[in-house]
Amino acid sequence: MLLADCAVELIPREIWRHPAVVNYCRKRGKTPGKTLLDSSYHHAAMRGLRDAERRGRPDILHFTILEVLGSPLNKSDKLRTYIHSQAGNLVEVNPSVRLPRNYDRFKSLIEQLLAEKEIRTESGEVLLRVEDGDLRSWRERWGLRSVVLLSETGEPLNRLGGIRELLEGGRPVCYVIGCFPHGDFSGEVKAIADMEVRISDYRLDAWVAASRLLCMLESVLLPGPGGSAG
Amino acid sequence: MLLADCAVELIPREIWRHPAVVNYCRKRGKTPGKTLLDSSYHHAAMRGLRDAERRGRPDILHFTILEVLGSPLNKSDKLRTYIHSQAGNLVEVNPSVRLPRNYDRFKSLIEQLLAEKEIRTESGEVLLRVEDGDLRSWRERWGLRSVVLLSETGEPLNRLGGIRELLEGGRPVCYVIGCFPHGDFSGEVKAIADMEVRISDYRLDAWVAASRLLCMLESVLLPGPGGSAG
Repeated sequence: MLLADCAVELIPREIWRHPAVVNYCRKRGKTPGKTLLDSSYHHAAMRGLRDAERRGRPDILHFTILEVLGSPLNKSDKLRTYIHSQAGNLVEVNPSVRLPRNYDRFKSLIEQLLAEKEIRTESGEVLLRVEDGDLRSWRERWGLRSVVLLSETGEPLNRLGGIRELLEGGRPVCYVIGCFPHGDFSGEVKAIADMEVRISDYRLDAWVAASRLLCMLESVLLPGPGGSAG
Repeated sequence: MLLADCAVELIPREIWRHPAVVNYCRKRGKTPGKTLLDSSYHHAAMRGLRDAERRGRPDILHFTILEVLGSPLNKSDKLRTYIHSQAGNLVEVNPSVRLPRNYDRFKSLIEQLLAEKEIRTESGEVLLRVEDGDLRSWRERWGLRSVVLLSETGEPLNRLGGIRELLEGGRPVCYVIGCFPHGDFSGEVKAIADMEVRISDYRLDAWVAASRLLCMLESVLLPGPGGSAG
């Protein structure tokens, strides 16, 4: 699964001196260039930024990745997760990583990741790693059979034969969830997609879209009380 | 749906003077008696508290209620949600409320709710309201046919005939999700339950359990691309 176009970036230099940013960083003992942009706190400073309404929402990634990593599909080791940010960073996620539930700590971890390019356990296991290269080379490296964007303007999934149909065949399928608050996927993400699919008649939050997709996948791929109960 | 035994309470008087609490409140300009207990920040102060490992986790409620309110089932107005805290508070949730995505703002809203007993929009609509009475009288008032606890030690749902079986009959069914980090449901919650059900072979976070249950309910109760896709 690819969590794409995440609204996650360090505070851009052009607003480092804005009072909202200066105050925020002073209170927390941080430097702007090593701090995540967060529209809840930097809203006033973000007004002049290009595409401001799409940026500064690490909470969306936080909710969504906790939903994904906590899923039975991930716990049964049948899922690989990557994070892709609007700034173009691509991050490999160790399926067994336990990310902070606390939002401040989650943000601090991502700040550390962006500075150091990887997060390891004390025993040296890599939990998160920034990868080199773009999405196109990433897709090729994985030999993905199909890249499926979840989008409210996509084709309804049941008209496509449902999730079983998408899963058939040998090579892995990648599902893409957009983790941005407004607008459409970026050109970079759209360029690697084979189809756009809609799983609900409602506009879903990224974490709800992720959980519904995972629930459908689990109903096909996992046996047991959860898998076959629907 | 009842989000039960939530680890949400104001900082108890016995630790108001602990340095971890004093520092936290001073930095944020808050008074301890009007501030939510949060183990991420008050861990050192909580060591002496009874049942400390079950308390001070408003993040669990935050994740779970956003998952619940964002669900297609809720958006189609087929769900009612109540919050029940370990301290015994019962809160009615307006299905159309849009709760803050930001954790600090969510906590501030709950603090305001506990102080004022209700939250209204500017036009006077009630969004959240603390109810009088206990769970037993609440169950009677709703005329619930069945109260189903989701629990990792419950009976596997597929052995019970799946979610369709539970939904049959006229009166409403209440599903109960525990929003606490450790241990079992309280005696108060267990006393109103008719059965305990397990929906996965894995131990699930509260928000993952909620989303899987909702996904199953939606597959039965909602038509459309999401409902029939599994």
